Amino acid sequence: MAPKLPRFFTDFFVYETAKSVVVKSWSVGVINRFVQLLIILYFICWVFLHEKGHQQRDTGIESAVITKVKGLGNLNNRVMDVADYVVPSQGSSSFSIITNMVITANQMQGRCPETDKKFICTTDDDCNKNNTSNIGNGILTGTCLINNVTNVTNSTNGWCEIEGWCPAEDDSLSGTPMKEVENFTIFIKNSIRFPLFDVTRGNFPSSLNQSYLQNCNFDPVHAPFCPIFKVGDILKKLNQSLDYITEKGGEIGININWKCNLDYDVEKCNPNYFFTHLDAAFKHSKATKGYNFRFAKYYQSEDGTEYRTLHKAYAIRFEIIVSGNAGKFNVVPFLITLVAAFTSVGLATVFCDIILLNFHKGADEYKAKKFEEVSGIVQESKGPRQGSQMSIKVLGKNSNDSGTFSIGRQE
Amino acid sequence: MAPKLPRFFTDFFVYETAKSVVVKSWSVGVINRFVQLLIILYFICWVFLHEKGHQQRDTGIESAVITKVKGLGNLNNRVMDVADYVVPSQGSSSFSIITNMVITANQMQGRCPETDKKFICTTDDDCNKNNTSNIGNGILTGTCLINNVTNVTNSTNGWCEIEGWCPAEDDSLSGTPMKEVENFTIFIKNSIRFPLFDVTRGNFPSSLNQSYLQNCNFDPVHAPFCPIFKVGDILKKLNQSLDYITEKGGEIGININWKCNLDYDVEKCNPNYFFTHLDAAFKHSKATKGYNFRFAKYYQSEDGTEYRTLHKAYAIRFEIIVSGNAGKFNVVPFLITLVAAFTSVGLATVFCDIILLNFHKGADEYKAKKFEEVSGIVQESKGPRQGSQMSIKVLGKNSNDSGTFSIGRQE
Amino acid sequence: MAPKLPRFFTDFFVYETAKSVVVKSWSVGVINRFVQLLIILYFICWVFLHEKGHQQRDTGIESAVITKVKGLGNLNNRVMDVADYVVPSQGSSSFSIITNMVITANQMQGRCPETDKKFICTTDDDCNKNNTSNIGNGILTGTCLINNVTNVTNSTNGWCEIEGWCPAEDDSLSGTPMKEVENFTIFIKNSIRFPLFDVTRGNFPSSLNQSYLQNCNFDPVHAPFCPIFKVGDILKKLNQSLDYITEKGGEIGININWKCNLDYDVEKCNPNYFFTHLDAAFKHSKATKGYNFRFAKYYQSEDGTEYRTLHKAYAIRFEIIVSGNAGKFNVVPFLITLVAAFTSVGLATVFCDIILLNFHKGADEYKAKKFEEVSGIVQESKGPRQGSQMSIKVLGKNSNDSGTFSIGRQE
Repeated sequence: MAPKLPRFFTDFFVYETAKSVVVKSWSVGVINRFVQLLIILYFICWVFLHEKGHQQRDTGIESAVITKVKGLGNLNNRVMDVADYVVPSQGSSSFSIITNMVITANQMQGRCPETDKKFICTTDDDCNKNNTSNIGNGILTGTCLINNVTNVTNSTNGWCEIEGWCPAEDDSLSGTPMKEVENFTIFIKNSIRFPLFDVTRGNFPSSLNQSYLQNCNFDPVHAPFCPIFKVGDILKKLNQSLDYITEKGGEIGININWKCNLDYDVEKCNPNYFFTHLDAAFKHSKATKGYNFRFAKYYQSEDGTEYRTLHKAYAIRFEIIVSGNAGKFNVVPFLITLVAAFTSVGLATVFCDIILLNFHKGADEYKAKKFEEVSGIVQESKGPRQGSQMSIKVLGKNSNDSGTFSIGRQE
Repeated sequence: MAPKLPRFFTDFFVYETAKSVVVKSWSVGVINRFVQLLIILYFICWVFLHEKGHQQRDTGIESAVITKVKGLGNLNNRVMDVADYVVPSQGSSSFSIITNMVITANQMQGRCPETDKKFICTTDDDCNKNNTSNIGNGILTGTCLINNVTNVTNSTNGWCEIEGWCPAEDDSLSGTPMKEVENFTIFIKNSIRFPLFDVTRGNFPSSLNQSYLQNCNFDPVHAPFCPIFKVGDILKKLNQSLDYITEKGGEIGININWKCNLDYDVEKCNPNYFFTHLDAAFKHSKATKGYNFRFAKYYQSEDGTEYRTLHKAYAIRFEIIVSGNAGKFNVVPFLITLVAAFTSVGLATVFCDIILLNFHKGADEYKAKKFEEVSGIVQESKGPRQGSQMSIKVLGKNSNDSGTFSIGRQE
Repeated sequence: MAPKLPRFFTDFFVYETAKSVVVKSWSVGVINRFVQLLIILYFICWVFLHEKGHQQRDTGIESAVITKVKGLGNLNNRVMDVADYVVPSQGSSSFSIITNMVITANQMQGRCPETDKKFICTTDDDCNKNNTSNIGNGILTGTCLINNVTNVTNSTNGWCEIEGWCPAEDDSLSGTPMKEVENFTIFIKNSIRFPLFDVTRGNFPSSLNQSYLQNCNFDPVHAPFCPIFKVGDILKKLNQSLDYITEKGGEIGININWKCNLDYDVEKCNPNYFFTHLDAAFKHSKATKGYNFRFAKYYQSEDGTEYRTLHKAYAIRFEIIVSGNAGKFNVVPFLITLVAAFTSVGLATVFCDIILLNFHKGADEYKAKKFEEVSGIVQESKGPRQGSQMSIKVLGKNSNDSGTFSIGRQE
């Protein structure tokens, strides 16, 4: 064809393809096509439609959450507003609504008796300083306050003395929880970004007007875009008793899940909300129930003495957990999946070969056609070199199979 | 060869390979090599160089951020320093700089008129307790304060009475925002860890000395390693009006993006910074603009009465969002990708077969060579059993193709 | 077989499979099986056992952390309890324990001299307002306080005057750090959820009783389920000097790592803890050491004047970092990996072909058997059309190989 060209060059442009054996058998042909159909269906239904194999996926969702609680309640004969019961106040994605408090007012640095039953004593030895557990309200002085000591009244008789903020907190006393929390509303403003596609979305449409936003309450069916959640509704969905959670506190997760198919209109990229008990893993644990924390308000008297009011606050802690991912058509994953699909269709052959070579009536003949044998060089060198065509020895019975897939049924 | 060995053993070590047809055609040969070249180029340029297919990837970046704001401003005739305007104070990755405040001083628990226009009334019915929306400053007592009631002055005439912290906040009054925020600086100390590779990096080199760190300002070109960001620079980059954001507040994201190729020197693993409007998704929304929150400072008078100063703070909220991933050569993904590349090169054959078997001048002959036919068993059993070699019937015109890839052009 | 059916229909159900050449050579057969064995072992040991290729993986772990610190210390002659030294107080996953403080008491708005050496002056020019760096304690008035000015005492002689909170902080003064932090304990309650499998787990078993939880201390060997961490133990594990960290502050990460194989009992899904220096990346940096922040407590005198106590708090900042993933058997990844394994076993052929066609004694003969040549159409059209069977021309020496894998060794 091109005799002047160097040999390696002509060799280089030679085309090589696999030689195939065509079997005109209805049974195997139908099985083959059926298996191919199954594989194609699997790719269309599962890989493309369900798993979105043609899409590039962004799982690195970036999220910012702002919350605002509204409502008024009564706790310890005081009207509580947002500045009183929301901690921290800045409206972050994790906040607590205080529903019950043990208040120990006007504490000052000094010495006083303990209040915990563990510190009941009869002699100073009971209050020795070896007690290094961190459960007390102050540092033990080692003195047991008994009647013959000066300024010990009956009420404090028989307790260890501590040094620290006095009087010590007695957290067995508790007021009436703020049940009005049921009517409080939580406004959640969540904006997310999928950095890969540079798509920014908010959890409610810009078209919602102010008056709707002031009066709506989230409902998965009737008001799925309303970003205002009534605490009572959340508790109801979680089967959480209002009495218990307001008295002992609790932890509630508000999950915002974004699953976006950006091949459709970006306006259809909207979140789903669901609610969880964050302490669900500990529901059978007797050791730890509810949620509380301590904080203090500090005051200074005119003479410069510092004193404080200690609050043990039982609270409902809310955590807004944002998760999600987005997919969009991209030519690279599309091609990769398409090639994988085409390659997988070829796997039907593996399955049919097993049938054909082992369980089919004409198995021997197929083996003869499929496998052409070349003997090893030892055998070869014995006789005179023959034309290669002659060494084609179709060994119906001896023909080997692929070892991996065929179930050796040599007769 | 080894006649003493059992049959299944000799069969087991027989080697099997595909029989190929070699086509000496320039056109197809060139097309084949060209398609192979495209596939190889795709793997080298895209899969290896761009997608780093030879690297193991760690996407579970662990990050810790510490921030420190510096600057002095004037708000409501008071000099504000960091302890005054940064909330929360501990220098976390999410913090707010208060730029404007509505202060309601000396509130005490009691009864007083509302201040919101929604609570203007003429009779007690207007202030009935059915009003359960959470928009008021206190709990409605149901009384409409009108002139003939004792101790109602003209200024409070015609408002519903509330119980709660009094006097009620009137947030229509506002001072002059603290515009000096423009010159404030934010120092960001971000250390990250890629747990898979146990690589720890900081957002600025250890070689930077104290004096540089006290005087530099981040600039993407001239000072890319300076970890100090001027608020004014950030606002400028976001085209954000200083007047608006200081009056109404806003939310700004500082994204720190780490993309590290650990095959190079680890010193080259440095972050990129960029800035976003966190409320970009709501920019067309009329309902919610800016950012504010309420907090209170609590005081106690000598007689033990608690009172407070309520602050409605308009603030710029900053969120430091850290993201990123790292890749490093690993023999496992390298081998997997290499095998995928070699396998994909074989796909050129599929493409060339389509051409060869359908559109090429010698298509019939190629079909004859590529496909060897075995008739089904029904046909087979009709005649006497012939030597298997005899049943090779090359049917130039009848030969079938792979169905999937060839466009049936049977004559 | 079914002559009445249309042609394309019979063609459609024809089965096609690759024609193979079987080589009876011990050497190549053994190499082939050995390479296949290696590939199978790789898949079993690495892909299935180590990489869990048969499992669906959930990397989107959702986590909620609650912490509670216990312990009592002495700082500046005051007994400090949790409400005093933990910031923020709500027990979030990121909190600081204050170990040292510089207290500037009774600051009021006004004018006073600076305290920083940078503001030593001799004339007003030294204190001009051009100084816009953000390092001072107040806004410079431009006055240099020298003796001849009224009410300037010797102690303030020669400093610039500022307007702001007065007296200015002098942070060179510092008390004795609170070393008792060593005995403080941190209780960590971490509940996680793998949303894909809807599995919820806590970091300690529900069976632990209250008394154990009050007395245990975490130990990786003896008490791996105890969720209470002694600060001293953590510092010891990190080789962190107590003296240094209590004086200058520091940042410590408590990593909770969940790696769960949900094919086993879910009770075996438990976390690992390890501790890190969050500022490890900056350990060689001279510029930034330790961790501190400023906050203020605000008071109001009877006449309504606001004053505050500024605290520069040196603290140990703890960040609980939760990471992890879970895997569970799923039929889809199992099938995909299985198919990949079977396909990869076929790669042994590629390797053996290279040997067989290039380095084996009978290479020429194998080439002859493996490759059947079809000449290009130009050559073809020269002679009269022969039966296709006749055109099989096995060219031992001319036969080409697959180009990609064979090392051209044509004789």
